[in-house]
Amino acid sequence: MDRFIKRREKVKKKIKELNLDAYLVLHPANRFYLSGFELHDPQCNESAGCILILPNNEDYLLTDPRYFETAQKLWDKDYLFIYTSNKEEEIKKFLIKNKLKDIGFEPNIMTYEFYKSLSESVNLHPYKGIVESLREIKDEDEINFIKESVKINHNVFDKLNSMELIGVTEEELAWEIEKIFRDFGATEMAFNPIVAYGKNAAQPHYIPGKIKVQKNGCLLIDIGGRYKDYCSDQTRTFWVGDKVPDYFSRVLDLVISAQRLAIENLKVGMMIKDLFFLVKDFFNENGVGDNFTHALGHGIGLDTHEAPALGPRNNKIFKPGMVVTIEPGLYFPDWGGVRWEHMVVVTEEGAKLL
Amino acid sequence: MDRFIKRREKVKKKIKELNLDAYLVLHPANRFYLSGFELHDPQCNESAGCILILPNNEDYLLTDPRYFETAQKLWDKDYLFIYTSNKEEEIKKFLIKNKLKDIGFEPNIMTYEFYKSLSESVNLHPYKGIVESLREIKDEDEINFIKESVKINHNVFDKLNSMELIGVTEEELAWEIEKIFRDFGATEMAFNPIVAYGKNAAQPHYIPGKIKVQKNGCLLIDIGGRYKDYCSDQTRTFWVGDKVPDYFSRVLDLVISAQRLAIENLKVGMMIKDLFFLVKDFFNENGVGDNFTHALGHGIGLDTHEAPALGPRNNKIFKPGMVVTIEPGLYFPDWGGVRWEHMVVVTEEGAKLL
Repeated sequence: MDRFIKRREKVKKKIKELNLDAYLVLHPANRFYLSGFELHDPQCNESAGCILILPNNEDYLLTDPRYFETAQKLWDKDYLFIYTSNKEEEIKKFLIKNKLKDIGFEPNIMTYEFYKSLSESVNLHPYKGIVESLREIKDEDEINFIKESVKINHNVFDKLNSMELIGVTEEELAWEIEKIFRDFGATEMAFNPIVAYGKNAAQPHYIPGKIKVQKNGCLLIDIGGRYKDYCSDQTRTFWVGDKVPDYFSRVLDLVISAQRLAIENLKVGMMIKDLFFLVKDFFNENGVGDNFTHALGHGIGLDTHEAPALGPRNNKIFKPGMVVTIEPGLYFPDWGGVRWEHMVVVTEEGAKLL
Repeated sequence: MDRFIKRREKVKKKIKELNLDAYLVLHPANRFYLSGFELHDPQCNESAGCILILPNNEDYLLTDPRYFETAQKLWDKDYLFIYTSNKEEEIKKFLIKNKLKDIGFEPNIMTYEFYKSLSESVNLHPYKGIVESLREIKDEDEINFIKESVKINHNVFDKLNSMELIGVTEEELAWEIEKIFRDFGATEMAFNPIVAYGKNAAQPHYIPGKIKVQKNGCLLIDIGGRYKDYCSDQTRTFWVGDKVPDYFSRVLDLVISAQRLAIENLKVGMMIKDLFFLVKDFFNENGVGDNFTHALGHGIGLDTHEAPALGPRNNKIFKPGMVVTIEPGLYFPDWGGVRWEHMVVVTEEGAKLL
């Protein structure tokens, strides 16, 4: 059975329970996960199309004429709906014509404008995370793709370890990293590389600039590529030069210890937020709790950041097949920061390092 | 006067007219245009932050702790609001605390979920395109950046013309193009290169694959990079090999003639849709109207696709300072297609080729 059909069957089961006439999938990675059609939108505020899942019938792929040829290669032409530039209006008419009245949708993806237009004629029901909760649990193929993707990431760090980085600017190094990823088999980057030298390492989402890597400063590198569409995401932080100051060693030790603590304690059935607090408490005990300013990690797969978020508000539990990053970080505007990130797959035996 | 302040003044004027207490800017390029803060979100469904424009007071930058260090380098700390993972809830409380009651927002960007949460406590007013209509008209600096960006694009095509492409796969060529863009000074790609050989050229938004470029087929290349954040976007279509079939020559002639027709007839004050119909009618007269399946072009700047859309429903007029692509295309699933795309700046003297 085709893996996309199998995934859609699970959505169909869910929407039968919810008594919906259809569920409209707009999120690009959700759409791709259920159909194989276009993992990326052309740009964030412009859709390549959507999937309309019906409880008991064939599902529809809705897109615009630019994608007609592409779509009909993987979708039955009779279930392809092509809208022109008046998208909202035409999709509304399509729903009315097909007597689809109660439509579930992704409230965190659908824009107010689209909602407003459709709601004039159909009953819209927000159901968040239906597809995301399926994507949270990776199947064997997905785990294998992710393993390959992480392997490339490890190879990139190995290569970086053998390179002379002093005198190179952050942005030059970021571009060098992109080329290495591609040389090692990544099909594209998962996100723009973060290469932050010195104080810049205190900015978790720093954009590499014209600062040169020099002796006696920290260098934070957070990078990821895609292989067979699946993302990798790893961070390492180094001290450049051999005179490592005590403050850096101490923080590096704390961060690596926190990561180990999290990986060793992650268990199936454990509440996700409890793992976050385990690390937060550890940092608090060591007087650096306030310097840990983000979540402990995130799910990763077709998106770099996907469910589950390893944050203080996630009341769900760890389940086998989840793939998550474990990335504690401590930031000090005076001199920089340290983040240390690996990816793990959740198994019955605990977290397995990738 | 700082260019960001100047731009925000224009928004302030507008929201005074609309009697709003504030206007919330979520769209990444709009946010960057008004503040210089983060042109890109980390991913499409994850925001780096937003700008809250007030009619008579200092404006606020709202973001999460990951961006705190970055934000305070360009924004007065007193007007920086940091929310944690409970974003919607905290922004709602922030608006209440600051007695901001009537809030304008971007209906095509704000999600239903965010809307729903805020609307529990404030009056939300959808006003589309306030910032986009400012961005539509480029200032001198922006036009200079775009000129440099297009120059790099021209240089890439010149380089491609001198290369032997036979035997190279589409995806290899796409990656080669990325490297050339970077070598020539682009800071990143504006979008993933479209390299489509043979029948694949019939798919306007084709993703390059493992097909090799061979003799006796058409090769469509649609590429763009960024320079100083500004995008370029150009397409050319070639016949590979010297035995050019009549059907290709004829279609290439028609497309290039259509482009020339559009560029020569574009005038300040003309209705934008009229330019689209000029080309559509020309293709209809030549019996290929149905093979022209997309808009004639689009505005370009901080986004690859931005206002104005050169489509059949745009009732606005061309104004000096607009920068748009002119990209007629004809597609034939049997053998491929031809698209020919240049960028022009609209001046009092008509369209000036970039």
